[in-house]
Amino acid sequence: MRIAVDAMGGDTGPRVVVPGAIDAAKARPGELKLILIGREEEIRPLLGDVDPSWVEIVHATENIEMNEPPAQAIRSKKDSSIGVALRLIREGRADAMVSAGNTGAVVAGSLLTLGRLHGVSRPAISTLWPNKQRGAVVLDVGANHECTPKNLVQFAIMGSVFARYHAGVERPRVGLLNIGEEKSKGNDLVRESHGLLEKDPRIHFVGNVEGRDVFDGAADVVVCDGFVGNVILKFSESIYSFLAHLVKDEIRRGVMAKAGALLMKPAFGSVRARLDYAEYGGAPLLGVKGVVIISHGKSSRRAIRNAILVAAKAVNANLNRHIEEQFNPGIPHAVEVR
Amino acid sequence: MRIAVDAMGGDTGPRVVVPGAIDAAKARPGELKLILIGREEEIRPLLGDVDPSWVEIVHATENIEMNEPPAQAIRSKKDSSIGVALRLIREGRADAMVSAGNTGAVVAGSLLTLGRLHGVSRPAISTLWPNKQRGAVVLDVGANHECTPKNLVQFAIMGSVFARYHAGVERPRVGLLNIGEEKSKGNDLVRESHGLLEKDPRIHFVGNVEGRDVFDGAADVVVCDGFVGNVILKFSESIYSFLAHLVKDEIRRGVMAKAGALLMKPAFGSVRARLDYAEYGGAPLLGVKGVVIISHGKSSRRAIRNAILVAAKAVNANLNRHIEEQFNPGIPHAVEVR
Repeated sequence: MRIAVDAMGGDTGPRVVVPGAIDAAKARPGELKLILIGREEEIRPLLGDVDPSWVEIVHATENIEMNEPPAQAIRSKKDSSIGVALRLIREGRADAMVSAGNTGAVVAGSLLTLGRLHGVSRPAISTLWPNKQRGAVVLDVGANHECTPKNLVQFAIMGSVFARYHAGVERPRVGLLNIGEEKSKGNDLVRESHGLLEKDPRIHFVGNVEGRDVFDGAADVVVCDGFVGNVILKFSESIYSFLAHLVKDEIRRGVMAKAGALLMKPAFGSVRARLDYAEYGGAPLLGVKGVVIISHGKSSRRAIRNAILVAAKAVNANLNRHIEEQFNPGIPHAVEVR
Repeated sequence: MRIAVDAMGGDTGPRVVVPGAIDAAKARPGELKLILIGREEEIRPLLGDVDPSWVEIVHATENIEMNEPPAQAIRSKKDSSIGVALRLIREGRADAMVSAGNTGAVVAGSLLTLGRLHGVSRPAISTLWPNKQRGAVVLDVGANHECTPKNLVQFAIMGSVFARYHAGVERPRVGLLNIGEEKSKGNDLVRESHGLLEKDPRIHFVGNVEGRDVFDGAADVVVCDGFVGNVILKFSESIYSFLAHLVKDEIRRGVMAKAGALLMKPAFGSVRARLDYAEYGGAPLLGVKGVVIISHGKSSRRAIRNAILVAAKAVNANLNRHIEEQFNPGIPHAVEVR
């Protein structure tokens, strides 16, 4: 399996991405072929002792910065690492791509270069969230800032397929992110979506969910528009570090607490690991013709490794074919899905 | 000062509300007159040894349940504790009201019974959030599920007045809750609002803020639509308890961690207190003709006490007069603001 990796992506670039990618290849020895895309002179020195047959470098001269206007950047920088990775998928030279770069550019580039799966109106970025049970798939967390009820229904279907084939949930329960339990609650978008979700036979809809329900594990798939999803994603990430700040503040004040903190260090470490987005690695952009995995801009080496393993799992599970089957039941696949 | 208290409100009703109210009266001896509204036979036995001149009971035969459709309930139950409390304000018999009951009913009832302050299109529920600095005012967190850019500008103005007179921030920095720093980020609502906020001389606008900025204290006032605000409010509350669950889980596993947790107990307690909504108490419904404070349905005795003190502070600060001045500069007040 050939995985195109945007080596220039993320806040730290090749220095973190390349070792992370090599870790993934080592975790599946001989199974993955990494196609590292970016400035060859920066990538090559980072390869170390990796088996040369596991790695290929594809030189790309340009890089899309984190704050560039996405659509414009993807159009004007023809030789960007993101653009090249997507073209490799389109040309059948890669089975998947992973990028920790400019998310908007990955989304815009995927739409432009790969296009949407047959029957899908809008792709969605789909994340795995920790909760008290086996975790939940939350989507969309940022591909669409304005959504229609029909979009949310499609997110529910794609999220269910992802939960089934990635997380092994037989019949994923779908919740609609809202501000109350009752059907009548929320804004126009969620109220209309509620009616559609209830009726769709492809969806095992369990009703509205709020923050508490998400963490309790009341749903395996949580659907929301990409603006709200992105806001809560960033809030959740920040609250963890805010709490750590408060706890450290208290520890500084007392000797007892300092001793306690030392004893609790491994416990804190485990909690942190259960929460860390690095453990979950990558968020697939569901609904495009190709396996595209988006990683956090602040991805650690471990996060990159895990994102590549998420990509491999999606390719092995034939995720996109299963999504297309939901939208085009009984129709032989006109479009080849990789 | 006379404070009408919805004694039937909240998940636990008079059992928690009445002692909480009495605690507030004791915290400001002789200053507050509590008007406890609800079923007299349930309220009277809870009064204890409180000075009889500090308390009055106004019997109300009906109660609006937490899950009743708000507008309908407030119209049909003429003798509900919420309805009676609001009428007392309108008739000049109370200076403020506090309710931990059905939030929608308090909002609908306030609009119906009190009406909006001159110049205000939509009232907003305004909460105090803990952060690394002195805390932030976040609004709207639930009064409006659909908002216009003009609404968000008005929330910014009202929130700034609240931050000035309640939290003592001279020139409150206003942030717009969004999914990126750049002006071009976000959905139509926030992009249009950004342009208006920048131009308004009444607002000290510091640009877009995301979760991290809110917790770092980058803004004193954070503006968002009521759907997004309510979603993040509930997420934040739930994350705290989710984290506590994870930590307890780890503690159960190891003797060292158990000992550490014992030593850290006071530190955890302090952190919890800094986060607990009970400490912040009540969320004012800004923009209506009267001081209306909304408390969490799960309010503790301490939360009720603090909500009543928030009400008293708003009355003393003449908060509503200051809000009206922002919307009607130089015009003598045709409408008496209590």
